[in-house]
Amino acid sequence: MAEELVLLNFFSSAFAMRVRVALAEKGIQYECKEDNLFDKSPLLLEMNPIHKKVPVLIHNGKPICESLIIVQYIDEVWNDRSPLLASDPYQRSQTRFWADYVDKKVYSAGKRIWLGKGEEKEAAKKELLEVLKTLERELGDKVYFGGETIGLVDVALLPFSSWFYTYETCGNFSIEAECPKIVAWARRCMKKESVSKSLADPHKIYNDFVLDAKKKLGIE
Amino acid sequence: MAEELVLLNFFSSAFAMRVRVALAEKGIQYECKEDNLFDKSPLLLEMNPIHKKVPVLIHNGKPICESLIIVQYIDEVWNDRSPLLASDPYQRSQTRFWADYVDKKVYSAGKRIWLGKGEEKEAAKKELLEVLKTLERELGDKVYFGGETIGLVDVALLPFSSWFYTYETCGNFSIEAECPKIVAWARRCMKKESVSKSLADPHKIYNDFVLDAKKKLGIE
Repeated sequence: MAEELVLLNFFSSAFAMRVRVALAEKGIQYECKEDNLFDKSPLLLEMNPIHKKVPVLIHNGKPICESLIIVQYIDEVWNDRSPLLASDPYQRSQTRFWADYVDKKVYSAGKRIWLGKGEEKEAAKKELLEVLKTLERELGDKVYFGGETIGLVDVALLPFSSWFYTYETCGNFSIEAECPKIVAWARRCMKKESVSKSLADPHKIYNDFVLDAKKKLGIE
Repeated sequence: MAEELVLLNFFSSAFAMRVRVALAEKGIQYECKEDNLFDKSPLLLEMNPIHKKVPVLIHNGKPICESLIIVQYIDEVWNDRSPLLASDPYQRSQTRFWADYVDKKVYSAGKRIWLGKGEEKEAAKKELLEVLKTLERELGDKVYFGGETIGLVDVALLPFSSWFYTYETCGNFSIEAECPKIVAWARRCMKKESVSKSLADPHKIYNDFVLDAKKKLGIE
């Protein structure tokens, strides 16, 4: 049976980028349907009635939602190439722990930098840098979080590196000055075509999405 | 090698209860070390320096944190009995989706019922009932969320049924009146010894933890 694989996508969504990176890393072809955050498609509402959010991966007509769950699904279905999780249960648990940490900490702090104001924004900047420093310690001297190859934690974190420019511009600070190892890691990853072709351009995120979203939300 | 298995536990923690249910369902013996939410042990801070929270499962000296990650670890290590996840990737993704839904929605609404006031509390009651109704639809006519046997979603949600008494008492409403199917499901699960011996007594949660915690937090 021919595989039918459709991604309900939004170009600047860090969560959608995760799925794009995972599919590219596995070399899987798919159809990409661009959705609109401010005017969601009937297909998105049908396929993800609970959260009503991209990304949704539709595999032979059946939807899978929530980015880390989609990435694990991809890893389990196409398990013959580029594994994103190790086979050892302990290593898997540690990988899931750090992917979950990224999920819980990075998006939330980042959002408060580009949407917040005053003290809230300053606190979020401090929080993001602390989170990234914690991740730098976890990375240590490894090439990737996954070791010699890209793994689930790399896939989880990488899309936010495309948002660093937005955080820095809105927060008027330098992430590289404080967290050079994370920035170096992101640059190493960008040398892989699976990554560079899957992540959104940082300037396009800022110019085409962030400025427009702030206007629509009535934020200066 | 003899397995050394230690659970850093707190009796009323819904997240710790998940691990207790999973270990009991698998018939695994372990040592339980009771921690104190208001005076955390040095062992807890050493084993979970990132989140500093129970539960932590220490397996042959190595810590695993975050309840759903621990439960998946248990399922992968002791994979010869009582599987909590199916082997089919699509079924696994749907199970993870609903376990994640419980994680994101139930605890937060419940907490705002027993710690919140006025409008916040009323909104949280409405939210919790909507979440439970959504879960009732997902349960449908199945015996358990896992089908004929208990699965990850059952393990994720069950501990909160021990908190229903607290939510009802603090919120002055009846969950059973609005969501009879979820209450019936919880009662069915309680007929299993693996569940009944692992969940905390609802009155003990309220009398020994909730009233004390509210006092310590300065909430009437």
